[in-house]
Amino acid sequence: MYPLNPSIAATSAPPIMEARGWLRGMVFPPDRPLIDVSQAAPMEPPPTELRHAIAQAALNDPQAHLYGPVLGLPELRTEIATRWSAAYGGRIAADEVAITQGCNQAFCAIMATIAGPGDEVLLPVPWYFNHRMWLEMQGALPVPLPTGADLLPNPDSARALITPRTRAIVLVSPNNPGGVEYPARLLRAFFDLAREHDLALIVDETYRDFDSRPQRPHDLFAEADWRGTLVHLYSFSKIFRLTGHRVGAIIADADRLAQVEKFLDTVAICPSQLGQMAALWGLRNLGDWVAAERAEILARRETLTRGIERLAGWHLKGCGAFFALVEHPHPLPSPDLARRLVAEAGVLTLPGTMFRPAGDPDGARELRLAFANIDRAGIETLIARLTRWHP
Amino acid sequence: MYPLNPSIAATSAPPIMEARGWLRGMVFPPDRPLIDVSQAAPMEPPPTELRHAIAQAALNDPQAHLYGPVLGLPELRTEIATRWSAAYGGRIAADEVAITQGCNQAFCAIMATIAGPGDEVLLPVPWYFNHRMWLEMQGALPVPLPTGADLLPNPDSARALITPRTRAIVLVSPNNPGGVEYPARLLRAFFDLAREHDLALIVDETYRDFDSRPQRPHDLFAEADWRGTLVHLYSFSKIFRLTGHRVGAIIADADRLAQVEKFLDTVAICPSQLGQMAALWGLRNLGDWVAAERAEILARRETLTRGIERLAGWHLKGCGAFFALVEHPHPLPSPDLARRLVAEAGVLTLPGTMFRPAGDPDGARELRLAFANIDRAGIETLIARLTRWHP
Repeated sequence: MYPLNPSIAATSAPPIMEARGWLRGMVFPPDRPLIDVSQAAPMEPPPTELRHAIAQAALNDPQAHLYGPVLGLPELRTEIATRWSAAYGGRIAADEVAITQGCNQAFCAIMATIAGPGDEVLLPVPWYFNHRMWLEMQGALPVPLPTGADLLPNPDSARALITPRTRAIVLVSPNNPGGVEYPARLLRAFFDLAREHDLALIVDETYRDFDSRPQRPHDLFAEADWRGTLVHLYSFSKIFRLTGHRVGAIIADADRLAQVEKFLDTVAICPSQLGQMAALWGLRNLGDWVAAERAEILARRETLTRGIERLAGWHLKGCGAFFALVEHPHPLPSPDLARRLVAEAGVLTLPGTMFRPAGDPDGARELRLAFANIDRAGIETLIARLTRWHP
Repeated sequence: MYPLNPSIAATSAPPIMEARGWLRGMVFPPDRPLIDVSQAAPMEPPPTELRHAIAQAALNDPQAHLYGPVLGLPELRTEIATRWSAAYGGRIAADEVAITQGCNQAFCAIMATIAGPGDEVLLPVPWYFNHRMWLEMQGALPVPLPTGADLLPNPDSARALITPRTRAIVLVSPNNPGGVEYPARLLRAFFDLAREHDLALIVDETYRDFDSRPQRPHDLFAEADWRGTLVHLYSFSKIFRLTGHRVGAIIADADRLAQVEKFLDTVAICPSQLGQMAALWGLRNLGDWVAAERAEILARRETLTRGIERLAGWHLKGCGAFFALVEHPHPLPSPDLARRLVAEAGVLTLPGTMFRPAGDPDGARELRLAFANIDRAGIETLIARLTRWHP
C-alpha cells in the first residue's frame, strides 16, 4: 500500500460520523421518532421564495453554472462589505471579503496562511472539533485554553500559554459547543492581547444572527488597524438554511486574502455559483424572515433553558444560538450515556468528550444539545424523555 | 501583522489570476472580440434539460439544500462505481468512490493523505500548475519528471528520481497542458513502477470523455490489487459544463477514503448537493449529448491541428481533449509574447513557463491553447490572427 501521511493518520475521525454510526441498525417507532440534536443542521429547506430564486438562476442565468472568481462573486463581496460595515460600525472594503465553500473551509483557508507544522494555536475548551482536526492534519498544535464555569476564556490564562510558536487565538461566539455569547469587552481584551503579541485573532461568528443581544457583538472593526490582527468568519448555512450549498466568508486584510486565494485556487477554484447567488438574494430580500427565525430560535432557547431547570440533577452550563451544553447527573461517562440515550430514549446528542482534549474529566459529564433543530413541542418531548430515562 | 506561513508565502500566485490581470483596462472592439483560450472553461451553460433538472431539484427536493454525507450522495457514488467498472473492465465498489467539490479538491484531499512536509512527488513536466501549488503549500516537493518530444514521461527516468522520500507519481491523461493521450501500456508501466516502490500512482482523468481513442484508456482497474497503488481522479466540470457547481470524484481504496473523509469533513463538510444531483442526472440521461459534444471537440481538435500546420514556424507539440501545446517561432519569451498577443492580437493564452519549473528553457518557446472553448470558426479566426501577428 502507498504511504499514509502520519499527520492524517494521527487525526481522529470526524465525531459527527461516529455519532451517525450509532444509528446504524436502530429502528425508531413511528410514535416515538428519533430526536436528533446532534448537529446544528436545519431540517427544513430554505423559504419558498429563496428556492424559487435559486431555480430561476439555474434556468436563466448561464453564469450560475460557470466558473467564477476564486474569492467569490464581486456583488456578494460588496454586499457583505457594506452590510458588515454598518452592522459592526467599522470599515470593511469589498476586497477584504472572500467567499468560501462553507465556513469550515473559511477556517482551513485562513489558518493555512497562518500556521504550519509545529506552530501553536490557542483554542478555548470545549472547542469546535473541526478546528482541532484541521490543525492536527496540518501538523500544527491546538493548545487548549481552559474556560471558567461560565465557559468564557480568560485573557490572562491565554497570555500565560503564549510561546514563540504561537500563531493565533480562535474564538467562536456565540459559541459552539457552549452556546455562550462572548461579551464585547472580552473580545476586545483578546484583540488587545493578540495585537500585542502579533497573533491573529480569529473570531468565528457563524451563529451571529441568533445572538440574543440587541447591540452589535463587538466593535473591533471600528479599530483603525483591525486588519493587522482580526479575522472574522461567517456562514450562510444557518441564516438561510443553505447547508447543502456550502457558502461561507472570511473578512481579513486584502493582502492576506491574496494568500488565501492560493489555497482556495487549489482546494476550491471557486465557491458554488448558485450558492453564492442564493446568499446574495437572501441578504437583499430575507431580512424580515431572518428576524422571525431569530425570534423563534430565541423562544426555543427559552423553552430549553426552562426544561433543563426542571430536570433533577441536570445543569445548564451554557445556552445560546443553536447549542446548549449541559451537565448530566448520571453515573456513567457521556460517551456511554449518549449511546444509551439513542437506544433507550430515542435521543441523539454528542458527548462532551468530543469537544475536549483526551483525558479532560469535564467532557464525561457533558452533553451538547443542538436544540435549534427542533421546535418547542419537540424540545418539551426531549425534556420529557430525559426526565423519564434512568440508567 | 499576524504571522504568515512561509510555505504559503513561498508559493507563487495562481497563474490563471495573473493572466486575467492582463485583461485589466483592455478594450476589445466589437468587430474583433477577445479570443480567450486561456482556461479549459466551457463558455456555454449545461444543456437545457439539465438546467431544468437542477431547477426542479431546487424547488421540490428539500435535500438539495441540506447537508449530505461527507463523501457524497450514495446514489452518485453507486452510479459512478457501476459505470466506471464497466468502462474500465474492473471492479470498483461504491465505497471506493468519494465525491469532492471539484477535481482540484480531489487532488488536494488524496494528496493530503499521502505526502507531508519534505515528501517528494513526481510530476511530469510540463505540469498542471495547481498540482505544483498544492504540494508547495503543504511543504512537499514537486519533483519535475522530464518528458520527451512527444510530451510522454519515461518510466526509467522516473525510476532514477525515486528516493526514500518519494510518495507518489501523478499523471494527467489526456494531459493538461500537453493534450497528449497516454498510451495504456505507458500507464501500465508507471503502475508497475509505483507498485514496486510502494508509491501511489495518481491518474487524473479529468478530460477522459474527450479522449479520441475508441478503446478504454487503461485497464488498471482490472488488476486485483489496484487499490494498493492506483488513485483515479475525475471531474464533472467539463463533461456536463458544471464548472460553477464544483463536482469531482476520487476512486481509491475504501480505507484510504476514510482518511480522505477527515480532510473533506474540515475543508468541505459535503459537496454541493445540487451539483451532485446534476452530475447524477447527467450520467443517467446525457449519454447521447456527451457523445455529440465529444465529436464536436474532436472536430475542433482537427481544425486546430490543421491550422497550426499552416502557421509558418509554429510547431504542435501535443494536442488532445481541451488543449494544444504549441511552440512559437518568435524571438521573445512566451510570457512577453502572451501579453503582447492580448493587446495586439486580441488572444489570451497561457505561456509555457507557467507549466514548468523556473529556468526550464522550453517554457519560453511554448503557449498553451485551451481550444475546446471556441468553435471551429473561432479556431480559424485564432489561426488567422496568429498568422498576421508579428513582433
